[in-house]
Amino acid sequence: MTHVIGVDLGGTKTAAGVVSPAGVVLMSETIPTLNRGGGEAILDATSALIAGLVERAADAGHTVSGVGVGSAGVIDAVAGTVVSATDAIRSWAGTALVAGLSARLGLGVRAVNDVHAHALGEAWLGAAAGSSSSLMVAFGTGVGGSFVLDGAPVLGHRFVGGHVGHFASPYATFDGVPLACVCGAAGHVEAIASGPAIHESYLRLGGSVLDAADTRGVFALAAPDSSAGEATASTLAAAQAVELGAAAAGQAVGGLINILDPETVVVSGGLADAGDPWWKPMEIALRRELLSPLLSVPVVRATLGNSAAIVGAAKLVLQ
Amino acid sequence: MTHVIGVDLGGTKTAAGVVSPAGVVLMSETIPTLNRGGGEAILDATSALIAGLVERAADAGHTVSGVGVGSAGVIDAVAGTVVSATDAIRSWAGTALVAGLSARLGLGVRAVNDVHAHALGEAWLGAAAGSSSSLMVAFGTGVGGSFVLDGAPVLGHRFVGGHVGHFASPYATFDGVPLACVCGAAGHVEAIASGPAIHESYLRLGGSVLDAADTRGVFALAAPDSSAGEATASTLAAAQAVELGAAAAGQAVGGLINILDPETVVVSGGLADAGDPWWKPMEIALRRELLSPLLSVPVVRATLGNSAAIVGAAKLVLQ
Repeated sequence: MTHVIGVDLGGTKTAAGVVSPAGVVLMSETIPTLNRGGGEAILDATSALIAGLVERAADAGHTVSGVGVGSAGVIDAVAGTVVSATDAIRSWAGTALVAGLSARLGLGVRAVNDVHAHALGEAWLGAAAGSSSSLMVAFGTGVGGSFVLDGAPVLGHRFVGGHVGHFASPYATFDGVPLACVCGAAGHVEAIASGPAIHESYLRLGGSVLDAADTRGVFALAAPDSSAGEATASTLAAAQAVELGAAAAGQAVGGLINILDPETVVVSGGLADAGDPWWKPMEIALRRELLSPLLSVPVVRATLGNSAAIVGAAKLVLQ
Repeated sequence: MTHVIGVDLGGTKTAAGVVSPAGVVLMSETIPTLNRGGGEAILDATSALIAGLVERAADAGHTVSGVGVGSAGVIDAVAGTVVSATDAIRSWAGTALVAGLSARLGLGVRAVNDVHAHALGEAWLGAAAGSSSSLMVAFGTGVGGSFVLDGAPVLGHRFVGGHVGHFASPYATFDGVPLACVCGAAGHVEAIASGPAIHESYLRLGGSVLDAADTRGVFALAAPDSSAGEATASTLAAAQAVELGAAAAGQAVGGLINILDPETVVVSGGLADAGDPWWKPMEIALRRELLSPLLSVPVVRATLGNSAAIVGAAKLVLQ
């Protein structure tokens, strides 16, 4: 069998890899995404990245038969176009992603949203390998996810499925007012459980920006070994902000499990990698929500790391 | 083509109908469910009900080729057994539903949960007919739902999928304490948005049980024409309780739309039939949650009424 190229096209960088039929990433390369250059410039740069990998694969004796792309934005997986995208990638919306790459490369191309690709990767070869259904939820700069059923991410009728950061959370409120969400609504899970939201909670709770300039700083203050020192307003606020974000995350994922009943639940993203101070309160809050037939659902950390979306995107053209 | 029998087996009554290949219910009958009699007694009574209909169908010149059942409880659709059920039907859990009916009738039988059957009926021939995916959410004695994708309800790995009443609602709290939910957890959508929950809200908000003994009474007090009289503590509490339940329902469904992106959303159940005093605040709250690509999602009332589960159950054996 021939190999394929998997591409993870994000707001700041684009990674691509040569993927074997078994899902092994043999070689990979990363370039900055030309996020101010517009759709055509991004297609030019991405196809050059892919062409380079096709050549390297050929040198190693592998033929490349197709390209799978997981891209930021809402991706129409049927038309192969970018339906909408945030300002993180200027003029990405409206781009004929599949046709544009296919014309440049002379290869078959398929594309989905990057979170859908990420979930498919974990479902195929990562933390949910072997499960007939899985729910992947990622907590990082944003909160996103995807439900993978029988080997395919449930894309949604308008390809928006999996926006699990955008439903109401009882935690997403301060002084009785729902917190503004990046989507324009208020009181959503993402407004309290994302990485940036944890930093905002920290500041609201009386933490000083001098002690923690960003989310990483908040986690450093909240770490068990830093509590050996004196408790300050900032260390207390940091511990509270992390607990709050983690509890909101767990409560949200627990509710999603009751709704979807996936065989396996995969929690991913930068916050899931932050260790026990986040994971423990997250899992306690999650388990508290579950209906009794769901109490034994496995909730596991993602295992593929940065290659999940590359592997998942590759799977699109390997089936 | 031959006809089939569709059965809607609920906690208080069991309805069955002869269903044509086109989904027309030609004749139907209803019996009380022997909910204190145990599994075998229910199977005896249900198979007698079905056998009677098979005979009536034969008299009308129709052969019956199979039986589809939508039953209360968690139904293992592969094994054909009742995994668990509430006390509403004593000793229903553990019953070999499909094997028991099949042995008694000599016909092929398939079974799913009644809410799954209900959603499949609406997706096939009701309010979501023609949609490739739909989300049905029912607000009544409880809150339940099902996501139907490509003509099949998403049952869940443990057949628990669609428990959309059991995720956190910011509305499901009073004096800062999350309201107890029938599932054993607290703060869930069902604890504020179900029919009984609206009556409980009414009492908590200062309404008198003498003015409204149940949910129906609360709606009567809250009806626009009743506000022609003097506003009393009870009429104010009734209006507030209905608004609260409706807003919680709409917020929940809006969040589910962001998560699942169904082509069509069907709202069903007794509360959806209560008219504008519930529907209007429900829909306003729903629309407030939606991500922009989803703003045009159709949200419609169920159309099949009591026959939805019969038709959906029939579909199980018509495909």
